[in-house]
Amino acid sequence: MRQLSVHADDVDRLLERVRRTAPLVQCVTNTVVQNVTTNALLAIGASPAMVDVAEESGGFARAASSLLVNLGTATPEQRAAAREAVDAARDAGTPWVLDPVAAGALLPVRTALALDLATRGPAVIRGNASEIAVLAGAGSGGRGTDADRGVDEVLPAAAELARRTGAVVAVSGPVDAITDGERVARIPHGTPLLTRITGGGCALGAVVAAFAGAAPEDPLLAASSAVAAYTIAAERAAEGPAGPGSFQPRFLDELAAVDGSRLAVAIAREGVAA
Amino acid sequence: MRQLSVHADDVDRLLERVRRTAPLVQCVTNTVVQNVTTNALLAIGASPAMVDVAEESGGFARAASSLLVNLGTATPEQRAAAREAVDAARDAGTPWVLDPVAAGALLPVRTALALDLATRGPAVIRGNASEIAVLAGAGSGGRGTDADRGVDEVLPAAAELARRTGAVVAVSGPVDAITDGERVARIPHGTPLLTRITGGGCALGAVVAAFAGAAPEDPLLAASSAVAAYTIAAERAAEGPAGPGSFQPRFLDELAAVDGSRLAVAIAREGVAA
Amino acid sequence: MRQLSVHADDVDRLLERVRRTAPLVQCVTNTVVQNVTTNALLAIGASPAMVDVAEESGGFARAASSLLVNLGTATPEQRAAAREAVDAARDAGTPWVLDPVAAGALLPVRTALALDLATRGPAVIRGNASEIAVLAGAGSGGRGTDADRGVDEVLPAAAELARRTGAVVAVSGPVDAITDGERVARIPHGTPLLTRITGGGCALGAVVAAFAGAAPEDPLLAASSAVAAYTIAAERAAEGPAGPGSFQPRFLDELAAVDGSRLAVAIAREGVAA
Repeated sequence: MRQLSVHADDVDRLLERVRRTAPLVQCVTNTVVQNVTTNALLAIGASPAMVDVAEESGGFARAASSLLVNLGTATPEQRAAAREAVDAARDAGTPWVLDPVAAGALLPVRTALALDLATRGPAVIRGNASEIAVLAGAGSGGRGTDADRGVDEVLPAAAELARRTGAVVAVSGPVDAITDGERVARIPHGTPLLTRITGGGCALGAVVAAFAGAAPEDPLLAASSAVAAYTIAAERAAEGPAGPGSFQPRFLDELAAVDGSRLAVAIAREGVAA
Repeated sequence: MRQLSVHADDVDRLLERVRRTAPLVQCVTNTVVQNVTTNALLAIGASPAMVDVAEESGGFARAASSLLVNLGTATPEQRAAAREAVDAARDAGTPWVLDPVAAGALLPVRTALALDLATRGPAVIRGNASEIAVLAGAGSGGRGTDADRGVDEVLPAAAELARRTGAVVAVSGPVDAITDGERVARIPHGTPLLTRITGGGCALGAVVAAFAGAAPEDPLLAASSAVAAYTIAAERAAEGPAGPGSFQPRFLDELAAVDGSRLAVAIAREGVAA
Repeated sequence: MRQLSVHADDVDRLLERVRRTAPLVQCVTNTVVQNVTTNALLAIGASPAMVDVAEESGGFARAASSLLVNLGTATPEQRAAAREAVDAARDAGTPWVLDPVAAGALLPVRTALALDLATRGPAVIRGNASEIAVLAGAGSGGRGTDADRGVDEVLPAAAELARRTGAVVAVSGPVDAITDGERVARIPHGTPLLTRITGGGCALGAVVAAFAGAAPEDPLLAASSAVAAYTIAAERAAEGPAGPGSFQPRFLDELAAVDGSRLAVAIAREGVAA
C-alpha cells in the first residue's frame, strides 16, 4: 500500500475546523465510557449528544454532523437505537463511525450486529487489531477489550475490510495504522497509559467522528488527523510522573490545549512512521 | 418582576441544613452524568440514591427527601421509572426537580415526557434557556444541550412557565435567573468551564434537589441558594491555570469545602445582579 | 470465631499473582460506578470486561476468571444478564462475587434478587453492615447506600450467612471484617474519603473479584488480601490535603503503585486488628 504522510499542518487545519464548526457528534456508546467520551469531545471542541433511545436516534442522526456507534454495552434498546441511527445516517449522508468493542467469538450478540452494521456504509471503522481481525473475518477475537494481535499483522485484513465496506479502517496500537485499502497512514504517537484507563480507545472513536463530521470529504485524512491530535495530546499528558488516575484529567487538559505548535513539535520529534 | 436578593447568610444557612440533615436525594438521571451527579451530591453533603428502576422508584420516592428527574438518556425503562417516581413524589409530598435535558423538536420522546411531567407538580424546573423556552412553549430547542438563547431573553417565558406549573424555574447561563413567576433572583457566579465538561448543568439539578429536600418550605430560596453555592464553588475551582480535566476534581473539592466565609467573599466581590 | 491474621507477604503474593495473570473479571454492575470500577480493575492489574447483556453474559462467564454481580441499578435487562451469568459461572466453576447494593425493605426488586442469588454459590458476598444484615435476615436495611449498623454488630449474622451460603462474607466499614463463618480477618485500613465518593465500595467488590479470580482456591485469603491492598492504597491516597475530587485520581494512582513494601509499611504501622 501507498504510505500517506500526515503533516502537522493538515492535522492543525482539521483541528481548527473542528473547533470553528463544533460538529454535533451523536453518540450511541457504552455506559462505561459515556462520561469520558463526552468530555473528550467537549475538550477537542465538538458538541456531543448522547442520543441512544429508539424513536429519537434516527431523527437526530439526520441533523447531526456525525454519528458514533460503539457496541460496548449494547442492550436491546441500544441495539435498536443504533440500527435506527445508522439507517438514518446512511440515508441522510451523515458520516458515521463504527467501534466494534470486544467483537469476537466470546460475545456473539455484539459481533453479529457489528458484522451487519459494517455493511451499512460506515465512514470509519475503528478498533484494536483483534476487533478489526474479527470484522475482516480473519480472527476470532481476544478476551474482552485486549488486543492479542499486532497492528502490522492485521493490516492486510484491515485493508481488505476497507475495500469491501468502503470505510476507512483505523487500527489502534502502539503505532496506529489508518487505511482506506489503497493508502495507509501510520501514527507513532500515544502512551501505554491509554490502555491502562477505560475509554482510551472508545473516546478516540468519538474524536474520529468529530473530525469526520468536520471534514466529511476526506475520511482518511479526518481519521488520521483525529488519531494524531488525540495521541499527541495523550503523549504530552503522560510526560512526568503519572499514574493512570492523574493521567486522565491531564489528558482532557491536553486535548483542550493541543494546537498547531504542539502538533508540530511532536511530529518533528517522532516523525511519522512510513 | 420583583428582584430577590440572595444573601450569603441565607445560602449558608441552607447549606448548613443540607450538611446537617443529609437529605436523601433520589436520582433518575442520564447515564452520562450519574457518576459526577452522585459525587457532587456527596460533596455538598447530601445522600444520593440512584433508584431508577420501575417497581422500586415509586416506593423510594415516598421515603426520599427529594427527587431529581433528568431526561438525558431516557430509555423506556427509565421513562417508566420516572413516571412512577413522580406520581409517588406528588402523592407523598416529596419535592422533585425536573431537568428537561435537550428538550426540543429534534428529540420528540423526551420532550413529550418533559411537557407532561411539567404539569405534575415539580418544585423546581432547571434547564438552560433553550430548554426552558421549549417547556414554556416559546421555542423549538437548540441542538443537543447547547443553549442558543440568552437567559434574559427567555425570562418572561420562564416566569409564565412558573406561574402555570407552580414550579420555581431556574434558568442556567452566564448569569443564572431563578423565578417563581413573581420574583426573580439573579446569580452572577460560575465559570465557562461548567459548559466545557459534561454534567455541569445536570449535577446542578441534583444539588437543587438536595436544597429543596432540606428546605421544602421555600423552593425559590432553596433553588437560588443551591445555584449560588454551586456556582461559587465552580468559580473558585476555575481560579489559576486549568483545563476542563483538572477543573473537575478541583470542583468536587470546592463543593465539599464551600462554607459561609467563601460564600461571603464571593458574593461581596461580585455582588448579586439586580 | 478464630482470628485470621493477614500478613503483608500474603497480600503481596496474591497481588503479584493478579498482576502476573491479569484475571479477566466480568462485571455486571451499576451504571453509576462502571467507569471507576473498570479503572480500579485496570489499576490493580486485572482485565475488566463489562458484559451485562443477556445472551452474552452466560457464555462470557464460562470463560472469565471471575464475575462481579452488583445490583445498584438493576434494570430488567441487567437482572436477566445477572441470572444468566451466575448460572453459567456456577456451572463452570467461575468464582463470583455478589454486591447487594442498598438491599433493604425500601428497594424490594433488587433485594429479592440478591436473596435469591445468595443461594447460588457466590464465592464472596461484599457489602456494608446494613446490606449484609438484610441478606442474613437480620435487618431491614438502611436508606440507600448508607450503613446504619456497625461492622462488629453485624458480624454474628455475617458469619451465619457465610455458613449458610458457603460464601466468604466481607463487611465494609471503618475496620473491615471478612469471615468464612469459622474465621474472621479484620483489616483496619482505609479512609473516610471512600464513603465521600461514589464507587468506594462498589469498586472494592470488583477488586475482590479480581483476587478471587487469581486465587480461587482460598476465597477468604483472596477477599482479605483484596480489602487490604485496596484500603491501604486508599489510605495513602488520602495523605496530605485532599477533598473528595482530588482523592479519586490519586487513589487510582495508588492502586496501580501499591506493592509489597507499601503494604508492609502500612501493615506494620497499623497492625492488623485481632
